[in-house]
Amino acid sequence: MLAEWQVQLQKLKSNRLFEVIVLIIILLSALLVGVDTYDEVIHPDFKAVMEWLDFAVTLFFLVEILIRFLAEENKKAFFKNGWNVFDTVIVTISLIPVSYANTVILGRLLRIFRVLRMVSIVPELRLLINSLLKALPQLAYVMLLLFIIFYIYGALGSTLFHAINEQRWGNISVAMLTLFEVMTFEGWADIMYETMRHPKGSPWAWIYYLSFIFFSAFAFLNMILGIVLKVMENEHRKLKPLIDDEPTLSELQQEIQELKAMLEKK
Amino acid sequence: MLAEWQVQLQKLKSNRLFEVIVLIIILLSALLVGVDTYDEVIHPDFKAVMEWLDFAVTLFFLVEILIRFLAEENKKAFFKNGWNVFDTVIVTISLIPVSYANTVILGRLLRIFRVLRMVSIVPELRLLINSLLKALPQLAYVMLLLFIIFYIYGALGSTLFHAINEQRWGNISVAMLTLFEVMTFEGWADIMYETMRHPKGSPWAWIYYLSFIFFSAFAFLNMILGIVLKVMENEHRKLKPLIDDEPTLSELQQEIQELKAMLEKK
Amino acid sequence: MLAEWQVQLQKLKSNRLFEVIVLIIILLSALLVGVDTYDEVIHPDFKAVMEWLDFAVTLFFLVEILIRFLAEENKKAFFKNGWNVFDTVIVTISLIPVSYANTVILGRLLRIFRVLRMVSIVPELRLLINSLLKALPQLAYVMLLLFIIFYIYGALGSTLFHAINEQRWGNISVAMLTLFEVMTFEGWADIMYETMRHPKGSPWAWIYYLSFIFFSAFAFLNMILGIVLKVMENEHRKLKPLIDDEPTLSELQQEIQELKAMLEKK
Amino acid sequence: MLAEWQVQLQKLKSNRLFEVIVLIIILLSALLVGVDTYDEVIHPDFKAVMEWLDFAVTLFFLVEILIRFLAEENKKAFFKNGWNVFDTVIVTISLIPVSYANTVILGRLLRIFRVLRMVSIVPELRLLINSLLKALPQLAYVMLLLFIIFYIYGALGSTLFHAINEQRWGNISVAMLTLFEVMTFEGWADIMYETMRHPKGSPWAWIYYLSFIFFSAFAFLNMILGIVLKVMENEHRKLKPLIDDEPTLSELQQEIQELKAMLEKK
Repeated sequence: MLAEWQVQLQKLKSNRLFEVIVLIIILLSALLVGVDTYDEVIHPDFKAVMEWLDFAVTLFFLVEILIRFLAEENKKAFFKNGWNVFDTVIVTISLIPVSYANTVILGRLLRIFRVLRMVSIVPELRLLINSLLKALPQLAYVMLLLFIIFYIYGALGSTLFHAINEQRWGNISVAMLTLFEVMTFEGWADIMYETMRHPKGSPWAWIYYLSFIFFSAFAFLNMILGIVLKVMENEHRKLKPLIDDEPTLSELQQEIQELKAMLEKK
Repeated sequence: MLAEWQVQLQKLKSNRLFEVIVLIIILLSALLVGVDTYDEVIHPDFKAVMEWLDFAVTLFFLVEILIRFLAEENKKAFFKNGWNVFDTVIVTISLIPVSYANTVILGRLLRIFRVLRMVSIVPELRLLINSLLKALPQLAYVMLLLFIIFYIYGALGSTLFHAINEQRWGNISVAMLTLFEVMTFEGWADIMYETMRHPKGSPWAWIYYLSFIFFSAFAFLNMILGIVLKVMENEHRKLKPLIDDEPTLSELQQEIQELKAMLEKK
Repeated sequence: MLAEWQVQLQKLKSNRLFEVIVLIIILLSALLVGVDTYDEVIHPDFKAVMEWLDFAVTLFFLVEILIRFLAEENKKAFFKNGWNVFDTVIVTISLIPVSYANTVILGRLLRIFRVLRMVSIVPELRLLINSLLKALPQLAYVMLLLFIIFYIYGALGSTLFHAINEQRWGNISVAMLTLFEVMTFEGWADIMYETMRHPKGSPWAWIYYLSFIFFSAFAFLNMILGIVLKVMENEHRKLKPLIDDEPTLSELQQEIQELKAMLEKK
Repeated sequence: MLAEWQVQLQKLKSNRLFEVIVLIIILLSALLVGVDTYDEVIHPDFKAVMEWLDFAVTLFFLVEILIRFLAEENKKAFFKNGWNVFDTVIVTISLIPVSYANTVILGRLLRIFRVLRMVSIVPELRLLINSLLKALPQLAYVMLLLFIIFYIYGALGSTLFHAINEQRWGNISVAMLTLFEVMTFEGWADIMYETMRHPKGSPWAWIYYLSFIFFSAFAFLNMILGIVLKVMENEHRKLKPLIDDEPTLSELQQEIQELKAMLEKK
């Protein structure tokens, strides 16, 4: 009888209408999150409606994930799929009861994360995220290099400019945040002139900033180049099996030489 | 007799001189739009001249599009061409009579759209726009992902920083506009420090900004990569038919093996 | 006798030592231009020395270009080379006598242009400039498109925001300069909020800015893609003659089929 | 006996555990540098501990480099490896005794440079740096061109805007720093409007800024293109030896023609 149920659930899961309903409920839950931020202008009656809707969405999500779990024949395989784990975590989190007045913000934050289900429900977005995640390890070492550059310049800046502006260069953490500002070119000139014109500063401070911009831009450029090359290589590899089925020119040459040998023997 | 007229109009339409005149009239209309913005320094007499010129341009555009419509043998085909529809809409809009004093601005706006005809008259620009439009669907899913990132961070920001700056984080709409500022690195450091140093803020707010910059930059980079790959693929496809006419190496190998078999039989 | 002189001049022109001396003089003239800007801290005596040096450099440049002109057998060919024209114009300009007190700035400006000779004397830089110039026509139509976008948005902005900030949106020229600021993301948020929050503005003004950023960024991206593709195509074309010498696979196939026919006949 | 020692040292050097210990010590020394910047909040007792740790790290580094030097059979080859020289210089510098009160900052700076050893100890980072260094000469001439553009515009700006803002345009050095600000689009509009609206300025000053942005952006774009092409060429070259082993199509054609000749002779 259980197997019969499972077949029914599998049919339901693959039903086109069911998929559309799930998508609509997710869009509704995202809309609720957005409307919720117009706190002041919402009528109290509508707020009560929203709370009911929110409860209904939570319930629906729970039912939907249970259907998908029960429909799965191999229960272990269900949790091997990263996207299933992703969905389960999100639904579980939104089940946490947060009705106390002082945790209103927490309740809202939990509901916001439900919007992430939009990524897991659209297959094209799942593919996109997967390909993005695959590009990440490629970047690990360039990011480590970038971090070392930030760390060294952060320590240097915090040692040299400590007395000029405590808020910017007080310790290595705030110095690294300041350096990130410099890297995005946001107000970097003001930061530089402050350390150049301050009585405890030095007119040579521009060397610090320009060398940092040069090194970090160089590492960043290398990171982008790395991604571009990786993506192109992947595209190339897709074509490779096609080419691998083809005989090589060397094989052709050998066959022609065999022909010659055969002719000569006669 | 109508067919005779059509032939005459077709001749006129393809006439090189006619094309040049149309281009000159379009340039003149663009020039009028530009001069019109120097409102205060224009002599009233010249304004009257401009109004007459403007009327003449409108009339000319109407005549030109009628010629092109009447010259077309298949009237349905005329409206299947997107550029013809584009021109017809622009000319129709500029025929709207807006002579009332309080709609001066509206009249000006309608005239500005006539400058768009410069795009439809130059064949190279039409080609360029067509190729740009073809690249757009490619971007649809990355743009959806970017929108989801903006939506989630907008809801988060509006929940967390609501009390700090109503104008920036009051609701999800203004929060998303603020996030677009952060994405363009325009004054993002000031926005961040406001939420870090405010008594209702948190010194950990930088995590919100840096993670947003990381995710949005990553999605944006992916979008650009997508376009580059698409364009390269198109270039590659142009060469493909040439390659498809060539026999494959496998076919060559088979022929050589047939040769061998023939030799052996003898 | 004249031919004999010409041979001597050609020898001098191709002399390695002569080339090095020309380069040193150009570097000296560039150095003089730089030192000249430290107006206040230069000793009057040194100024006199600089004036003499400057005169000497001018004279040397004149002699050098005369040597190159006289060494050339075909005088017409001399002026067909763009770089020779470039050098002649620069030297001629620096001969203009500007000794009057009120034209000191003009005299300086003329001397600055002599630094451009550094580009024409280093062969690698000449190659680089040539390749950059070749990429320009490729860009003509995308730049025209970008100009049309600027023109239309300039006219729109000047019509809509005229009353809000005369200095920014007074006429189409200043509006286009303001739009260039927006395109570089420099203070664009302040410009936008001014037109959104002004009593004569509109809360919907963000549509104007975001659509402009989208269109201009899209056209700009297309421009860069155009250059990249052009450069790659050029690289590819360099390899092509090599490939063209190779027989195609079709030709090989035909030869094998001829072999078969020969075998069958026997 | 010395040879025996050398074998022992070589074993130690290649020991996996030894490598891990070296990496941990380097990470510890980097951590010390970071903690050191939280000057005010560190307990004096912990400061003494840190000084001892610092001394121990210095000693360990000295021992480690001696082991690597003594383990090397060919002492000359040791210093031919750039990374060995790099390590030796860093360790030597950190041996400089700086215990005087007024050189505390110098002592800190020297310790910061030890963090650079993280680059030389991780093989992947060493590879990355090597590939970055290889790309540099490629850039030399574009950088020279960029410098010439900066130099000429610096001299022009210092001549034209000298009287408007001494701090920005006083001499060619500060003018070039101002131009770097303009190139990063940081506050460039304010710099431009100052020279346009100042009584000694000119409303045409925008030509100076826009042409500079155009030229420098063009040279910069060319620099990036140069790197991309270089990297792709390198990737391509890696595949080349593989292709070179293959016979060319011409060689195959020749062999088939020989076959034909053999058949005809019979």
